[in-house]
Amino acid sequence: MAIVGAGQTAFGDFPEKGVKELFAEAYFEMLKSVDKGLDPAMIEAAYLGCLSAGGGFQLGQLAPLLLGYVGLPHVPAVRLENACASGGFALYAAVCAVASGHFKVVLAGGVEKMRDLSGQKGRYWLGVSGDTEYERLAGCTFAGIYALMANRYMFEYGLTRRQLSLVAVKNHRHAVANPKAQFRRAVTLEEAMEGPMVAHPLNIWDCSPTSDGAALVLICSAELAREFTDRPVYVAGFGAAGDYLALHDRADITKLRAARKAARAAYERAGLGPGDIDLAEVHDCFTIAELLAYEDLGFCEEGKAARLLEEGHTSFGGRLPVNVSGGLKAKGHPLGATGCGQACEIFAQLRGQAVEPSRQVPGAEIALSHNVGGSGGTATVFIYRGGS
Amino acid sequence: MAIVGAGQTAFGDFPEKGVKELFAEAYFEMLKSVDKGLDPAMIEAAYLGCLSAGGGFQLGQLAPLLLGYVGLPHVPAVRLENACASGGFALYAAVCAVASGHFKVVLAGGVEKMRDLSGQKGRYWLGVSGDTEYERLAGCTFAGIYALMANRYMFEYGLTRRQLSLVAVKNHRHAVANPKAQFRRAVTLEEAMEGPMVAHPLNIWDCSPTSDGAALVLICSAELAREFTDRPVYVAGFGAAGDYLALHDRADITKLRAARKAARAAYERAGLGPGDIDLAEVHDCFTIAELLAYEDLGFCEEGKAARLLEEGHTSFGGRLPVNVSGGLKAKGHPLGATGCGQACEIFAQLRGQAVEPSRQVPGAEIALSHNVGGSGGTATVFIYRGGS
Repeated sequence: MAIVGAGQTAFGDFPEKGVKELFAEAYFEMLKSVDKGLDPAMIEAAYLGCLSAGGGFQLGQLAPLLLGYVGLPHVPAVRLENACASGGFALYAAVCAVASGHFKVVLAGGVEKMRDLSGQKGRYWLGVSGDTEYERLAGCTFAGIYALMANRYMFEYGLTRRQLSLVAVKNHRHAVANPKAQFRRAVTLEEAMEGPMVAHPLNIWDCSPTSDGAALVLICSAELAREFTDRPVYVAGFGAAGDYLALHDRADITKLRAARKAARAAYERAGLGPGDIDLAEVHDCFTIAELLAYEDLGFCEEGKAARLLEEGHTSFGGRLPVNVSGGLKAKGHPLGATGCGQACEIFAQLRGQAVEPSRQVPGAEIALSHNVGGSGGTATVFIYRGGS
Repeated sequence: MAIVGAGQTAFGDFPEKGVKELFAEAYFEMLKSVDKGLDPAMIEAAYLGCLSAGGGFQLGQLAPLLLGYVGLPHVPAVRLENACASGGFALYAAVCAVASGHFKVVLAGGVEKMRDLSGQKGRYWLGVSGDTEYERLAGCTFAGIYALMANRYMFEYGLTRRQLSLVAVKNHRHAVANPKAQFRRAVTLEEAMEGPMVAHPLNIWDCSPTSDGAALVLICSAELAREFTDRPVYVAGFGAAGDYLALHDRADITKLRAARKAARAAYERAGLGPGDIDLAEVHDCFTIAELLAYEDLGFCEEGKAARLLEEGHTSFGGRLPVNVSGGLKAKGHPLGATGCGQACEIFAQLRGQAVEPSRQVPGAEIALSHNVGGSGGTATVFIYRGGS
C-alpha cells in the first residue's frame, strides 16, 4: 500500500487552537498535498492517535468529533491510545485496514493538545503512561524512568554526558531548517551540557518538550496510488510490539525489546535490513532514547551508538541521517501526533519535497520511522520506499 | 474469519477487582473455552476497548499493561476508544487485522471499571462522550440526551410510557437466567413505569447501570478455525460508521444514522438481510435505544418498533429474540466491555451453550450484535453464523 497525501501543523505552543482546529489544519494541508486531488467522499475509515483526548481527557469519541468537524461525520473513525506511540498504532491499524481489502482509502493521524495544561495536571497525565502502580505512584516521572535507563547504559557502555548532549546538538541543528519545528534554534554543546538538571543525568536539553500539534497521512492500496499521485510513498514493511510497562519487569533496560521486535517484523515484511535505510525518524523523547534506537533498529552494534553519532553518520550529510526534522527533541512531541508526524516528514523527504534546500536528504529512497510508547511499553516501526 | 473462544466476567459491582483482575478473569475463561486448546504464544495481536482507561483515566498504555499481566507482554496490543462502542471498534480492528492476512490469531476485547467512582466523577466522565462543548457543558447528561430522543419519538409515532417500560420488563426477565448478568431480577410493568424520574420520560428503570466487567473473544482466519474447535462462529459481516456527536447537528433524532450505515455495510458484506437474523444483542443503554435499534437494523418499519415488542416477537420464544442476555439494561454495561460481551453471548448461543435451559435460543444460526457510542456518534454492527 501507499501514502499519497500528508499534512501536519507546525508543532509548538498554540493557545488559540483547540484539537478541532489543529486537526482541521492538518487535514486541509493533507488534502492540498494530494497531487491529482482527492474527493473527500472517498475516505472510508479513519484511525487517530491521541493520549489525552483533547487536553486533560475532556472528550470522549474524539475521532468522530474531529471527522465531523471537517465535514466527514459518517466515516467510521476511532481513537487509538498507546501513550506516545498512539500515532504509530493509528498508522498500524490503518495499514491493516487497507491490507484487509475492505477499505481502499483510509486516514491515519493523530492530534494532541498539551500546552494549555497546568504543570501539575500535565505532569499527572504524562505520568500515567508508565506503570502507574509501580512507577508513577512511587514518584517516578518519565524523565526519571529514562534517567534510570541512561545511568545503566552509561555504566554498561561508558557513555558520557558529552555524548548524550551531542544528540540534542544534532537535532536542534536539524530543526533550524524545518518550518514545522517547535524549536528552530541551534544549541551549543556547552549549553546542552549545562542545562538545568531534570533527573540525573538528564537535563532540560535532554528532554523533548510538551507540544500542541496534529499530523495526518492518507493511505490507499498500491493499485490506486497512481490515481492520486505519480510520486506515492509505499509502505514496504511495518511492525508493532509490546513489553512490560514497568522497568523492573524487564530483563535489560539498555534495550527496548518492543522496538526490537517491531523492527524485526518491519524488516522481514519489507525484505530489507538496517543497511538499506537511507534516513530515519526515531523516537528521541530523551537524548538517551535516540541512542538506544540506533541499537534497537540495528543501525550499529550494542554499545556503539555514541560512536555512530560522534562520527557524524546520523547527522544531515552523513550516511544515515536520523531525525532530519529535528526529532521529538526539537521538532516537538505532541504525543498522539508524533508517529504520523514522522510519516509526514518521510513523505516529504522521499518525494524530494523537504523544501528548504538545506534539509532535503539527497537521493533517499528507503526510510524508517520508529515510535515508542512510554518507556518502551509499546513500539511501532515502519519502512517506506519512494515510488518515483 | 471465525471466533473460536470467548470469555467474560460477570458484569456488576466488584470493589475487590481492578482492571487487571477483571481482564485476567475473562482471559482465562476465554482460554478454557477453546475446545481443542490454545497455546497463548499463538496470539499475535490484541485490540482492547476501554473508555476510562482503568477508572477515571488513570492509566495510559492500558492494553500492553493488561497483556503483560496475563503473561503476554510482547503482543502488540492497543486500546481503542469510542465511548460505549469502544468494544465494538476493538472487534472491528481485530477483524480487519485478521482479514489483512498479516495476523492469524488475534484477541479482541474490552474492560471497564466504573463502580468505584464517586457519583460526581462518574457523571463527569460519562458525560464526555457527548459533544462536550454543546451538550455536557450545557448540562445535558446522557440520560438527558436520550430523553430528548425519546420525547421526539413519542411525538412522531405515539410511543407510550407503558411501551418504553416493556423493554425494561423484557430485558430484566431475560437476565434472570443469565449467570453473568448484573441484575438477575425481574421487574413488573407497574414497577418499571413508576421508578424515580431521571430525565423525563426516562426513569431509573429505563437506564442501564454502571458496571465493572471485561469480555474477550479470540478471532482467527477461517482456515485455522477447525484447529481450535469443531464449532466455530464465523464473522459473516461487519460494519462501522460515525455521526455528528451533537444531536442538534443531525437531521433526525429518531434514528441513528451511524447504526443504519453500519448495519447496511454488515448486511452487504454478509449477503444477508434483517429477515435472516435469528437473534440479536442490541445496545439498549436506555429503553428508547432498543426501540430505535429495531428500526435502524431493519427489524421493522419506522414507527413500528413498539408493536414488534408488544407482540412478543423480540422476547425469548419469539421469532427474533433481542437481548436474551438481559442487554445493557439488565446484564450490565461496562462501557469498553459491552461490545465484545455481546459477541460472547452470541458465541454461546450459536454453539448451543447458553447453558441454563431457559436461555438457549433453539436452532439459532444467524445472529447480530449492535454497539453504539454515546448517543450515536459511532456504531458497529456484526453478523455471525454458527458453524456446526
